Amino acid sequence: MMNKNVQTFLACDADYDVADTVLFGVPFDGTTSFRPGTRFGPSAIRNQSFGIETYSPYCGKDLADCRIFDGGDLELPFGNTEKALALTKSYTASVLADGKRFVMLGGEHLITLGAIRAVAELYPELEVIHLDAHTDLRDQYIGESLSHATVMRRVWELIGDGRLHQFGIRSGEKEEFEFAGQHTDMHKFDTQGFSHTIACLEGKPVYLSLDLDVLDPSIFCGTGTPEAGGLSFKELLETILQLHRLNIVGCDINELSPHYDQSGSSTAVACLLTREILLQIIK
Amino acid sequence: MMNKNVQTFLACDADYDVADTVLFGVPFDGTTSFRPGTRFGPSAIRNQSFGIETYSPYCGKDLADCRIFDGGDLELPFGNTEKALALTKSYTASVLADGKRFVMLGGEHLITLGAIRAVAELYPELEVIHLDAHTDLRDQYIGESLSHATVMRRVWELIGDGRLHQFGIRSGEKEEFEFAGQHTDMHKFDTQGFSHTIACLEGKPVYLSLDLDVLDPSIFCGTGTPEAGGLSFKELLETILQLHRLNIVGCDINELSPHYDQSGSSTAVACLLTREILLQIIK
Amino acid sequence: MMNKNVQTFLACDADYDVADTVLFGVPFDGTTSFRPGTRFGPSAIRNQSFGIETYSPYCGKDLADCRIFDGGDLELPFGNTEKALALTKSYTASVLADGKRFVMLGGEHLITLGAIRAVAELYPELEVIHLDAHTDLRDQYIGESLSHATVMRRVWELIGDGRLHQFGIRSGEKEEFEFAGQHTDMHKFDTQGFSHTIACLEGKPVYLSLDLDVLDPSIFCGTGTPEAGGLSFKELLETILQLHRLNIVGCDINELSPHYDQSGSSTAVACLLTREILLQIIK
Amino acid sequence: MMNKNVQTFLACDADYDVADTVLFGVPFDGTTSFRPGTRFGPSAIRNQSFGIETYSPYCGKDLADCRIFDGGDLELPFGNTEKALALTKSYTASVLADGKRFVMLGGEHLITLGAIRAVAELYPELEVIHLDAHTDLRDQYIGESLSHATVMRRVWELIGDGRLHQFGIRSGEKEEFEFAGQHTDMHKFDTQGFSHTIACLEGKPVYLSLDLDVLDPSIFCGTGTPEAGGLSFKELLETILQLHRLNIVGCDINELSPHYDQSGSSTAVACLLTREILLQIIK
Amino acid sequence: MMNKNVQTFLACDADYDVADTVLFGVPFDGTTSFRPGTRFGPSAIRNQSFGIETYSPYCGKDLADCRIFDGGDLELPFGNTEKALALTKSYTASVLADGKRFVMLGGEHLITLGAIRAVAELYPELEVIHLDAHTDLRDQYIGESLSHATVMRRVWELIGDGRLHQFGIRSGEKEEFEFAGQHTDMHKFDTQGFSHTIACLEGKPVYLSLDLDVLDPSIFCGTGTPEAGGLSFKELLETILQLHRLNIVGCDINELSPHYDQSGSSTAVACLLTREILLQIIK
Amino acid sequence: MMNKNVQTFLACDADYDVADTVLFGVPFDGTTSFRPGTRFGPSAIRNQSFGIETYSPYCGKDLADCRIFDGGDLELPFGNTEKALALTKSYTASVLADGKRFVMLGGEHLITLGAIRAVAELYPELEVIHLDAHTDLRDQYIGESLSHATVMRRVWELIGDGRLHQFGIRSGEKEEFEFAGQHTDMHKFDTQGFSHTIACLEGKPVYLSLDLDVLDPSIFCGTGTPEAGGLSFKELLETILQLHRLNIVGCDINELSPHYDQSGSSTAVACLLTREILLQIIK
Repeated sequence: MMNKNVQTFLACDADYDVADTVLFGVPFDGTTSFRPGTRFGPSAIRNQSFGIETYSPYCGKDLADCRIFDGGDLELPFGNTEKALALTKSYTASVLADGKRFVMLGGEHLITLGAIRAVAELYPELEVIHLDAHTDLRDQYIGESLSHATVMRRVWELIGDGRLHQFGIRSGEKEEFEFAGQHTDMHKFDTQGFSHTIACLEGKPVYLSLDLDVLDPSIFCGTGTPEAGGLSFKELLETILQLHRLNIVGCDINELSPHYDQSGSSTAVACLLTREILLQIIK
Repeated sequence: MMNKNVQTFLACDADYDVADTVLFGVPFDGTTSFRPGTRFGPSAIRNQSFGIETYSPYCGKDLADCRIFDGGDLELPFGNTEKALALTKSYTASVLADGKRFVMLGGEHLITLGAIRAVAELYPELEVIHLDAHTDLRDQYIGESLSHATVMRRVWELIGDGRLHQFGIRSGEKEEFEFAGQHTDMHKFDTQGFSHTIACLEGKPVYLSLDLDVLDPSIFCGTGTPEAGGLSFKELLETILQLHRLNIVGCDINELSPHYDQSGSSTAVACLLTREILLQIIK
Repeated sequence: MMNKNVQTFLACDADYDVADTVLFGVPFDGTTSFRPGTRFGPSAIRNQSFGIETYSPYCGKDLADCRIFDGGDLELPFGNTEKALALTKSYTASVLADGKRFVMLGGEHLITLGAIRAVAELYPELEVIHLDAHTDLRDQYIGESLSHATVMRRVWELIGDGRLHQFGIRSGEKEEFEFAGQHTDMHKFDTQGFSHTIACLEGKPVYLSLDLDVLDPSIFCGTGTPEAGGLSFKELLETILQLHRLNIVGCDINELSPHYDQSGSSTAVACLLTREILLQIIK
Repeated sequence: MMNKNVQTFLACDADYDVADTVLFGVPFDGTTSFRPGTRFGPSAIRNQSFGIETYSPYCGKDLADCRIFDGGDLELPFGNTEKALALTKSYTASVLADGKRFVMLGGEHLITLGAIRAVAELYPELEVIHLDAHTDLRDQYIGESLSHATVMRRVWELIGDGRLHQFGIRSGEKEEFEFAGQHTDMHKFDTQGFSHTIACLEGKPVYLSLDLDVLDPSIFCGTGTPEAGGLSFKELLETILQLHRLNIVGCDINELSPHYDQSGSSTAVACLLTREILLQIIK
Repeated sequence: MMNKNVQTFLACDADYDVADTVLFGVPFDGTTSFRPGTRFGPSAIRNQSFGIETYSPYCGKDLADCRIFDGGDLELPFGNTEKALALTKSYTASVLADGKRFVMLGGEHLITLGAIRAVAELYPELEVIHLDAHTDLRDQYIGESLSHATVMRRVWELIGDGRLHQFGIRSGEKEEFEFAGQHTDMHKFDTQGFSHTIACLEGKPVYLSLDLDVLDPSIFCGTGTPEAGGLSFKELLETILQLHRLNIVGCDINELSPHYDQSGSSTAVACLLTREILLQIIK
Repeated sequence: MMNKNVQTFLACDADYDVADTVLFGVPFDGTTSFRPGTRFGPSAIRNQSFGIETYSPYCGKDLADCRIFDGGDLELPFGNTEKALALTKSYTASVLADGKRFVMLGGEHLITLGAIRAVAELYPELEVIHLDAHTDLRDQYIGESLSHATVMRRVWELIGDGRLHQFGIRSGEKEEFEFAGQHTDMHKFDTQGFSHTIACLEGKPVYLSLDLDVLDPSIFCGTGTPEAGGLSFKELLETILQLHRLNIVGCDINELSPHYDQSGSSTAVACLLTREILLQIIK
């Protein structure tokens, strides 16, 4: 009767040893230039996950039937970006070394770099699917090379030309769009071509990075830099429901900023997407 | 000049005796498990109704031409679920006994049971249309049989197989969906088949239960348990604009939780739907 | 190094003399009947404009390549409607006299009258495009002839029959819709027919009045009188992307009320539309 | 059973004819220069009054034993300051003509002028007690003579030198403080001297104007122009508990702006003060 | 490295078996009549406890040196008041049976009855210290005998005359104050006499019930029924710092409603008081 | 007429060259561990400063008579703490080199280190007055030596024993209080001894660091880490009104976090204190 107060995402209560999938949070928002607060994202997702069900009527599967460990949030230093990335890489690497998949909850988008540094070492042929409103392809941002606005440029440096598949992009500098034209597989505005990309990537190791601001602010206002003209929930859901065809070795869901989500509906969206992504990537 | 401070929904200022339709509120949220606050729904709808017009450009009718009595809110005990349902049934029964239709404003969804207990006694052949994100078909919820999560199971016990027509459902336990497969007429995710249902129900006594969370959170974030993937406003409006073909003997509009509606836009949606439903059901 | 703290809309930092376009704010909400606060609109748009980019992937142009002067906000008396309109007219007239175009940020919709009083003097053949949820065609409102609810009736008195092209209208009194049937070119509910109107107006002097509540509250909740059933962002964007075909001599963007925009996403929408409109009207 | 939905301040449900005291609201904020919203004050006070008791342990009296009529809110035009004042004066005059006292709920402070125009006609020897953070003694404000910032200058013009007793004042222009030194009985910062003033005014007709921002923002943050350094609740309460010694012929309680009172505690303070003032002025 | 995500109040991370004190939450607000939300109190206190230190400069002790088990929140049914009280009593009784003290975090004030039902069985000579703005001595409230407004009447029935020591009381019906005059030791408005009470109770088993609304709303706005005129933080702190002289066998801290605490400062106050009370009652 | 939109703190509109005092903002919150947002502090203070007057009835002086330049906010990189401090030091040094005093608006408390690095180079005998709720004397915080929680330890390293005069301190680790006992002049809980300190420091170069959370949360809730038991506004004001006796060569006002100040009253407090400090330090 006298149990400890363990808090996990909905039904993700397996022990680490038996789990095949690890969920963990990286509450980092240190390079956020406009409105900070994504550090509160992971705990908001856990807390509000009890407002949805474990069963998905979309794919007919149930989280209660899975073996997922929720490792809580990494404890990070404040004001030291490099160290935060190093801790993220280290945790990710140990999960991979134990033969498990992972879903990382952000935090700001830069955390993706920490995870991919670990994943790309293990999988040199890594392909990355990037759903986002923003290009994130700047080389520098206000003099810094490590930033939410440069993260995909840094990822490209790790994986090389043609392996970064971007969808939903509708904001960036002119130079970033030109860079994308030469180096990445960018699909502007929506998810046209996603099925084709899925077909091409079957069998390869794939990392999925979902910046939730790819959604239209009508359905996802709880983020630091809302950009109108995004995907509807159903468009994004259709995309996610194809992911079981891929070998997703790791993924992240980032940029929920709960302070801008007074109603909790953005957090509810993030919870639902987390559930669906978990159900898709678990074999 | 020195009038009392009477507050009604937009233009619903007829005297009870001459009214053919009664609007009333049931500010009950006693079984809400996640985030309470629907008790404030009816008064929010009344207060904000003055932000919309009495005239509908959708159906060309005007509330100012109708005879509707707004009876205010029932006064309920707190912490006593059975008594709240009994008071709701009693008020409903007396309205029906006086030969009037009613629109009940919630409050949480359980209040539907109070109203249908009265309606089903008068109309043993009652058919129920249920618009909702959630199945609400659990038999028990945390050990309780009376709950917002069990309300439609209780309604089914009153009206029997095949008479519960559910639309927009996208959340529930696996067992609830299986139960629906055997006992109710469930249409998952959207309103496909609604016109056919309308055609089948013409001439029969019909009760309409509208849980506003059937709408997508993009247009209706002001509710305790937002569930992504719902109806757009226009989809729901098209559905409602068909209701004049039916004999609606009573209906409810529930689950607005104004504290999660910082902008007031969910409340504005509830006001508009209340106007359109009133204009549809009045003969 | 020690510069003054000049605040402008994104990249609108040209000097007045060299600018061909002037942006200015009119922080007036004196006749707002329901929920005031649009006075805070212009400064919210300026502050949050740094959350978007200067480059538009929609039209391929960049604000950084334009010469736009941001004149800040007019200083207005409080409680004196006529004087506020006179100051608005006077500022507008002087901009026009200097041979420049303008984009005026509201404030409530009545400010349109101040600007059009100046524009219509200069362009007697003026055509007006009006995007709005509301008819705004009352003759009087609570005994007043100058009101956000009467503004387009006053505009019609200035420009005459057939020159007021209304789109997206879905709220008003029965009499207003009847008036529109006789005197204005009203397109109810959506933007059907907009391309045709564009074709007809090519070459003529055109004023554009954009009441942001023409958008659906799902994407634009930050306004005093949200009205469900409106345009999606993409519908409105498609409309705006046609404006370069016209000779827009002045325009306004009004009714953002930041206090009802907790997440800032409505303000982000207003910023993006301001950018796109500027890029469309500049030759 | 089927009663109309009458809303009054706590227990103020007497009929007009038998009442000796009238409570009414003036939801006007048309000259508010900084942050509007006091128009919502009266209804917030009524709605939240049910969170306090009718009985006062401070004076041992009970509102349930009084005969008070709550007349609701005046219906005012928007954008027409003079007309709003005229309507306020007219209502006040008719209440006085019927031999009743009144408590007027604001709304912004300018409404005091409307009421005092009526009261001063009936009582040429009127004395005014003014509790406020601000001098309100400007002659003009942004070119206007009717403003929340000029209201006590206008009152002084009506009642003359030495009859305006100001307490708690801690904000104004240098010129206003100098004006006060010559023409009013100003007590800066606190309520020192209040008992003496009470003693001097016994037997005379007195009007009380309570601008709630006289309170420190710690206990009353829900106002448009909070000014630190104000009265504690207990200091103000002690002041009010002396009012039964006077012949208060009318009074107002103004400047609650509920949108800045997220917790409702400022509104609770306004409710309690309204109760105590009513209990003090009723004979 | 891969630990479970255990969440406790600041440093309360001892195992149950070695702990001498148990902290637990009762997230119940089922009889709240005005504004619900105290169910979110315990988790808000845990989450925000990391904003304060474990060390107290007031008493020189440190939570890190104590052995406290945080048992998380009880899982309660919704809408069934009697069952919630029974579960609270049962948990409390088992903690006492294991020879431990407890601090219970509410939730609404009614939960005190559940705990005292267990404590009073073990300690028939129990004395109760009750800090509150409200009398809570009604016999019935809207027809119910179990309510936040009747809880201390029910407690009095258990412990008898003269054993209920009430401080800070400033709101109630006239009849409640009269009842207190005959049956309880009530100190109105403040904590005068507290030291004397402490002296009288030394050596006896004492239960402390702290309704946080005893504090003035200036320092504690985050509660459902704020009542002006309360204790300052320092007044309450001085009271608490005397508690080590007593034998506190159990206590509760209740009525934090985080939704009315936008800034988090009320929650910070609750955290600090929880720390100080823990440090006082631990021997 | 067509002026640029320059935004300054109330009346601080002198040109840099003629100014004797410089106001500037440092919108940095990169090491904030709990709740970020102080980056928005300086602009909130500027915007809301127009809600107060330029004239102080406390000291009889007027900002309109002073020559103060408002330099706006420093543009800082995100995620690079050292560079932010270097930019702060550089700006401060150039202001000092031009023979001017400064008031720096934070941002988080760490920015004090940037400024004092410049000031201490110029004034080796520098004394520092530190008003704060927190000791800020940790040597490391989560492995970092540059943090809001270590800032005063770093300052002590620059200025040495006995030159750091701390007031209002009521939160810290046991070790920090012990460190203070040996190395700083710490006054716990309140401002007792402040007049004596003033007397001792007359004639010496003094830096003032005001962490606004030294105030009680009742009057200043708008901060990331509210700590109950603080100074009242009047206590702090009395302290500040003695500053004219000192030679203040620079000062900062930090830790306003506007997102936690829904009502704006904390920002109003910050504005008033900024005005009073400016009026005190200008000769």
